[in-house]
Amino acid sequence: MKNQYFSRRKFITATTALAAFSSMSFATNNKPLNAVRTEGSEREGLLPEKMTVGMVVFEGFQLLDTFGPLEMFGSLRDEVQIVIIGEKKGAVKSSAGPAVVVEYDFADAPKLDIVMIPGGGGTRREVNNPVFISAFKLLAQATPHVASICTGAAVLARTGLLDGVKATTNKRAFKWATSQGPNVKWIAQARWVEDGRFFTSSGISAGTDMALALIARLFGQDTAVRIANGAEYGWNNDPHHDPFAKLNGLVD
Amino acid sequence: MKNQYFSRRKFITATTALAAFSSMSFATNNKPLNAVRTEGSEREGLLPEKMTVGMVVFEGFQLLDTFGPLEMFGSLRDEVQIVIIGEKKGAVKSSAGPAVVVEYDFADAPKLDIVMIPGGGGTRREVNNPVFISAFKLLAQATPHVASICTGAAVLARTGLLDGVKATTNKRAFKWATSQGPNVKWIAQARWVEDGRFFTSSGISAGTDMALALIARLFGQDTAVRIANGAEYGWNNDPHHDPFAKLNGLVD
Repeated sequence: MKNQYFSRRKFITATTALAAFSSMSFATNNKPLNAVRTEGSEREGLLPEKMTVGMVVFEGFQLLDTFGPLEMFGSLRDEVQIVIIGEKKGAVKSSAGPAVVVEYDFADAPKLDIVMIPGGGGTRREVNNPVFISAFKLLAQATPHVASICTGAAVLARTGLLDGVKATTNKRAFKWATSQGPNVKWIAQARWVEDGRFFTSSGISAGTDMALALIARLFGQDTAVRIANGAEYGWNNDPHHDPFAKLNGLVD
Repeated sequence: MKNQYFSRRKFITATTALAAFSSMSFATNNKPLNAVRTEGSEREGLLPEKMTVGMVVFEGFQLLDTFGPLEMFGSLRDEVQIVIIGEKKGAVKSSAGPAVVVEYDFADAPKLDIVMIPGGGGTRREVNNPVFISAFKLLAQATPHVASICTGAAVLARTGLLDGVKATTNKRAFKWATSQGPNVKWIAQARWVEDGRFFTSSGISAGTDMALALIARLFGQDTAVRIANGAEYGWNNDPHHDPFAKLNGLVD
């Protein structure tokens, strides 16, 4: 799907990145969807005219997998709101130590437009956590755009939703990650892979390039380039440019 | 200074990145230095044989400024421990919305080997916050290596510690940031600048390249390359390669 936002949003994106860059406004106090469901038809706290991007985290998530993509979406502050989702609310530690605050558990998660899942050492535990897998599967089924970064693809593969879908994952952990989804059409050499509503990226830093590709798909190429330039980021915007497949012996 | 860690640590870094990559161990429960000072000569919780990297955050910090560098240092899990420091403990929101957990306030901050400060919209407030500036100045004075990312250089400049020092900052916000330190030797075209114990980077994503340069300085070039490759990161390892100075009209 080329999605419902593109045409409506296209005309207002030209000035968004610059405005967001100089803005000091922060995300407002989001409230859970469940509370709103009993109160009315509108989501309270979350603004219905904004696109909602949800990042699903777990103990031992990888920092750059998570915050590289969110940096890029965060530049669209007038168009996008970001929520952090996990199995439990509260502080969740990354593999490097620093903790992020989970605002929503799976039961309370608002309706999303994009759901993303990072990699990290914690994926080794979560692929064997049926509660996490089934809750994440429900969320991904209900969300128009689904993205994974690094070994987050292993968790996504365990939901079964990637069966028959082209996808990629971390190159150093390729064997382990791909073993979690024997029916996925894994691609060894790719910075990221887009297949229908699924975007999957290679390891760690590749998620940032993929996020810009997803932004290009939803908001236009010019917006993605402007965001990359605003972040002084040398965007690898070629999904086929992946020197790390060869470096890790996955291709000749 | 070429610092006290280099020779001692160099021999054990060869296997560190690979070991860290497959490890699932997390940072242990750190305890404040102040508590330990009254209890004994060793820092409790924090491991004295590890290098301690402190990231100073504030409401409205920039996500990638903060977590790009910490991703790279986080790969040295057997050698480095990361702490998050702020004016108050607890959740602190980024400019994009997601919040990080501050473990230490300035008074409780442990002795650091490296202190870093990110940019973000919140710098516009903190440059005029004398409590923050003086506490950050004390911390930076007591720390061997001091680094800023993006407009974090504006906050660092307001301490006076950069006077007479070569430094750089965000290219789009260059005029504002440099106005915070009229006696700093600002360099318009640089991915990052190293001058003695100070490392300062250009905007947002440049901090990741600078962090790898700082890792190369402390742990050796091979270690920095191995960490970049492990993160599937195309490291811009040339401090003079900065196309964003021209893009923003700072050089011809």
